[in-house]
Amino acid sequence: KDYKEPPPAPLFEPGELKSWSFYRAGIAEFVATFLFLYITILTVMGVVSSKTKCSTVGIQGIAWAFGGMIFALVYCTAGISGGHINPAVTFGLFLARKLSLTRALYYIVMQCLGAICGAGVVKGFKKSIYMANGGGANFVNPGYTKGDGLGAEIIGTFVLVYTVMSATDAKRNARDSHVPILAPLPIGFAVFLVHLATIPITGTGINPARSLGAAIIYNRDHAWNDQASSSMGALFFQWIFWVGPFIGAALAAIYHQVVIRAIPFKSRR
Amino acid sequence: KDYKEPPPAPLFEPGELKSWSFYRAGIAEFVATFLFLYITILTVMGVVSSKTKCSTVGIQGIAWAFGGMIFALVYCTAGISGGHINPAVTFGLFLARKLSLTRALYYIVMQCLGAICGAGVVKGFKKSIYMANGGGANFVNPGYTKGDGLGAEIIGTFVLVYTVMSATDAKRNARDSHVPILAPLPIGFAVFLVHLATIPITGTGINPARSLGAAIIYNRDHAWNDQASSSMGALFFQWIFWVGPFIGAALAAIYHQVVIRAIPFKSRR
Amino acid sequence: KDYKEPPPAPLFEPGELKSWSFYRAGIAEFVATFLFLYITILTVMGVVSSKTKCSTVGIQGIAWAFGGMIFALVYCTAGISGGHINPAVTFGLFLARKLSLTRALYYIVMQCLGAICGAGVVKGFKKSIYMANGGGANFVNPGYTKGDGLGAEIIGTFVLVYTVMSATDAKRNARDSHVPILAPLPIGFAVFLVHLATIPITGTGINPARSLGAAIIYNRDHAWNDQASSSMGALFFQWIFWVGPFIGAALAAIYHQVVIRAIPFKSRR
Amino acid sequence: KDYKEPPPAPLFEPGELKSWSFYRAGIAEFVATFLFLYITILTVMGVVSSKTKCSTVGIQGIAWAFGGMIFALVYCTAGISGGHINPAVTFGLFLARKLSLTRALYYIVMQCLGAICGAGVVKGFKKSIYMANGGGANFVNPGYTKGDGLGAEIIGTFVLVYTVMSATDAKRNARDSHVPILAPLPIGFAVFLVHLATIPITGTGINPARSLGAAIIYNRDHAWNDQASSSMGALFFQWIFWVGPFIGAALAAIYHQVVIRAIPFKSRR
Repeated sequence: KDYKEPPPAPLFEPGELKSWSFYRAGIAEFVATFLFLYITILTVMGVVSSKTKCSTVGIQGIAWAFGGMIFALVYCTAGISGGHINPAVTFGLFLARKLSLTRALYYIVMQCLGAICGAGVVKGFKKSIYMANGGGANFVNPGYTKGDGLGAEIIGTFVLVYTVMSATDAKRNARDSHVPILAPLPIGFAVFLVHLATIPITGTGINPARSLGAAIIYNRDHAWNDQASSSMGALFFQWIFWVGPFIGAALAAIYHQVVIRAIPFKSRR
Repeated sequence: KDYKEPPPAPLFEPGELKSWSFYRAGIAEFVATFLFLYITILTVMGVVSSKTKCSTVGIQGIAWAFGGMIFALVYCTAGISGGHINPAVTFGLFLARKLSLTRALYYIVMQCLGAICGAGVVKGFKKSIYMANGGGANFVNPGYTKGDGLGAEIIGTFVLVYTVMSATDAKRNARDSHVPILAPLPIGFAVFLVHLATIPITGTGINPARSLGAAIIYNRDHAWNDQASSSMGALFFQWIFWVGPFIGAALAAIYHQVVIRAIPFKSRR
Repeated sequence: KDYKEPPPAPLFEPGELKSWSFYRAGIAEFVATFLFLYITILTVMGVVSSKTKCSTVGIQGIAWAFGGMIFALVYCTAGISGGHINPAVTFGLFLARKLSLTRALYYIVMQCLGAICGAGVVKGFKKSIYMANGGGANFVNPGYTKGDGLGAEIIGTFVLVYTVMSATDAKRNARDSHVPILAPLPIGFAVFLVHLATIPITGTGINPARSLGAAIIYNRDHAWNDQASSSMGALFFQWIFWVGPFIGAALAAIYHQVVIRAIPFKSRR
Repeated sequence: KDYKEPPPAPLFEPGELKSWSFYRAGIAEFVATFLFLYITILTVMGVVSSKTKCSTVGIQGIAWAFGGMIFALVYCTAGISGGHINPAVTFGLFLARKLSLTRALYYIVMQCLGAICGAGVVKGFKKSIYMANGGGANFVNPGYTKGDGLGAEIIGTFVLVYTVMSATDAKRNARDSHVPILAPLPIGFAVFLVHLATIPITGTGINPARSLGAAIIYNRDHAWNDQASSSMGALFFQWIFWVGPFIGAALAAIYHQVVIRAIPFKSRR
C-alpha cells in the first residue's frame, strides 16, 4: 500500500487565518457561486418565461446548465479552494475531516453571498420576468408532500457528495490513475443527473447556497405583494433545502468513510 | 510485450469470503444499483407522466439519465467492486474468467436487491403516478414481436459488454495510456446510445437487475387489480430481459476473448 | 525534438497479409461498422417514424447517436484496427501514408459489408416502418442543389478527418500529454457537430460506408415499387456521398501534412 | 514549488516574424474560425428557418454546436496556435502577457477573416433562408436594453476567459495532473453554458470574430433593402459585441493574474 491517508484536519487551524491562500480560496468560492447562480438562473428564466418550451433549451437544458457549470467551476477552482461551490459539499467534507471548521464556515458564508449576488444580477436584467416566473427558487411542487421534497433532496445530495468523495479519495487516487484526472466530469454529471430526476419534485436544490440565493432575491420584493402563498413560499420552504442536503451529505460521508474506507476501525493502528 | 494477461479467476475462491473487501464490494454494488434505479426511474416517471413531452427532459433526457448514471457510478465504484451495476456485465466478465463464480452470484443478488429498493423508493414518492405510467418497467412495445425485443436486447447488451471488455483489457491498458483513463465515459455512452436506439422497442433493458427491479415493484400491487394484460405484463416479459442480455454478454465475451485476444489459442503456451 | 515521424507506410506490405492481426483488424472494422449502422439507423427510424418529434429523442438525439457511437467505437477499436469505421478516414490516413494500400482497400470493403449488414438488421425489425421512412439513407433534401450537398459533405468530412489527424499526430502526441488521452472524444464530437449542422441538407453522410449501407438496403426492395423518384434516389445520389467525403478527406490530409506538418519539405533531410 | 512562471511575452518579438510556425499559427486560427462559423451558423439556420423547433436540433442543439466546436477546435489547434479562435481570448491572454502584441493583432485579423469566410459559405448554400432568418448575427433582442446586452456579454466572456486561464495556468499544470489533460473540455463547456443562458438576450456573442463575421455577411446585401431597422441592426449593435467581450476578458485576466496568482506582488522578487 503506497498511499497515506492524510491526517484529519483540526477543527480550528490558527495558521491558515494568516495565509493569503485562505482568503483567496474564499474569494474563489464567492466568484464561482456567483457565476453558478448567474448562468443557471438565467437559463431557468429563459425556459420558464417562454410559452412553448420547444423554442427554448428546454428542461434538459436547465439540467445541463446546473451540471455543466459545476463541471467547469470544479475544474477551475479545484486547485484554489477545493472547488466546493456548495455548502452541502463543504459540510460533507468537513464531516470527513478534510477541512477545518473555520474554513468550512468561511466557505459557506462566501458561497451564500456569491449566490445572492448571482441571483440578484439575473433579476437586474429583467425584474418583471424574474418575479413573474418564480425567480428560479426551489419549491416543493404541488402534488408532492414536504416529506417527498425532503427525501428527494437527501438522496440527490447523497449522489453528489458520494461522487465527490469517490473522486477525491486518497487511496484510489494513488492506485487508479484515471480517478483524479476525470474528477470534475463525474461530479458535474452527478448534478446534471439529479436535476433530470428531481426537477419535477423540487426544482432540485442539493445546494443550500443556490436555494438561499434565489429565495432571498425572489422574496425581498414579494414581501409587499400580499400574495402570502407564493411570496413567503420560497423562504418558508427553505429549511427543506438546508436540512435535506445536509442529511444527504452526512449519509454520504458516513457511507464513504465507514463502509468503504473503514477509517474508524483503522485509526487506532 | 510488456504486459501479462492475469490468470483466469478460479470458480470458487475460499479466501475472498473471509475478506472485508468482498462484502464491501457487494454493498457498493447494492448502493450503486439502488441509486441507478432511483435516478433513472424517477426521470422516466417525470417524462411519461407529463401530457406534453416538451415540458420535460424528454426521451433523450431519459437516455442521458441511464447512460450518465452508469458513467458516474462506474467511476465511483470501479476501485471497490469493479463497477458492474448490471448482472449482464457480471456474467460477461465471469465468462471471461475475470471474477469467481461465488463473487458473480453474490454481485447479481446484491444488484437485484438494490434495483428493487431503488424502484420501490420511486413508487413511494407518488404511487398513483408510478402505477398509472408503467412503473418504468420494460415491455416489448406493441407493434414489435418478442423476437424483435429479444434481438434488440442481445445486440444492445453486446454493445455495452464489448465496450466494457475493451476498456478493461489488460493488453491495451499496458500499451495505450488513454484506455484506462477514459474508461467510465465510453461505458456510460454505450448505455446512453443503446437507449437512444431501442427505447421505442423495449424501453431498453440491457440490465436484468434494472428490468427485474421495476417489474417486481410495478406488479406487486397490480396482482389485485385484475388487469391481466398489463398487470402480469412486466413479469411475463421478464425472461426476455434476462435471456437477451445474457446472450449478448456471452457473445461479447466470446468476440473479445476469442477473436480479438485469441486467448484460447495462447493459453497452452 | 524527442519524437520521430514514423516512416510512410509502403503501398503494399506483403508481411501483414500473413499476420493474424491484419485479419483481426478487418473483423473489428466489420463489427464496429455493423454496430454503428445498427444503433444509428435504429435511432433515425425511431425519430422519423413518429408523428410528433417531441415524444422521440429528436433530431439532436440522432446527432448524438452518430457522434456517440463513433466515440465509443473509436475507443474500443483504436488499439485493434486504428478505429476508422469510415472509408473517408481510411482514405485520408492512406493519403498521409499511415497505412498500406492493401490494408486501406481491405478496411473499406469490410466497412461497407458491416454497414450493409447493420442497416439490414434494422430493416429486419420493422420492414414497413423502414421502407416508409427513407431507411436512414442520405439524400440531398429538396430545396438544396447537388452542389450544396457535395459542398456540405466536403467541408463536413474535412472537419472529421482534420480532427482525426490532429488527434493522431506523432509530434503533438510526444509533446502534449493530453492529445492521445482524449482522442476518441473530439473525434466523436466532430461527427456529432457535423450532424447538427448538415442533417437539414443531406442527412449527413461524411461516411461512404454508412451512406452505401443504408442506400443498398433501402433500394433493394424499392426496385419493384416503380416509384422512380424515391426508389432510385438513394443509389442515384450515392456518388455525392463518396466523392464529397473523399475530397474532404484529401483536403484535410493535405492541410495537415503540408501546411501544419510541412512534411514534404522535411522528408528530404 | 517545482514550477516556473514563464516570463511575460515581449510586446514585439522580431524573431517570431521570421519563423514558419508564426505564419502557420495564423493559418490554423483562420481555418479553425472558418470551420467554427460554418458549422455553428449552419446549425442556427437549420433551427431558425424551421416553423416548429421540435423537428430541428433545437436551441439546445445550437448551444452544443458552439460549445462542441470550440472543444474540438481547441483540441486540434492547441499545439499549433494555442487554440484561441476568439479575439476576446487572444486579448485576455495578451493582457496576461502570454503572447506578443504582434501575434495578438495577427491572430485577431486572421480570426475575423476566417469568420467572414465561414459565414459567407453558409450564405452561399441558401441565400434566401440566410437573409430571411437574421443570418446568425448577434442582436440585443427586443425587450432587453443595450445595457443588458453589454452586461450579458461581459459576464459571459468572463466565464470563458476565466476557464481558459485556469486551464492553462502554469502553477496548476505542474501540480494537478488533470488540469492540462481535460483542458479543451471545460473550455468548450464554458461556451456551451453561456449560450444556454444568454441566447434569449443577445444570441450570445462572447466572440467578436463570430459576431463580426455574421454581421458583415448579413448586412452587405441588406444595404440595398432599405429596411433600416434590421439592415443596419447587426452592424449598429457591433460595438456591444466587441466592447463587452473585451471588458469581460480584461476582468478575467485581472481576476486570474492579480487575485488568484498575485503575480504583480511576486514579480519584484
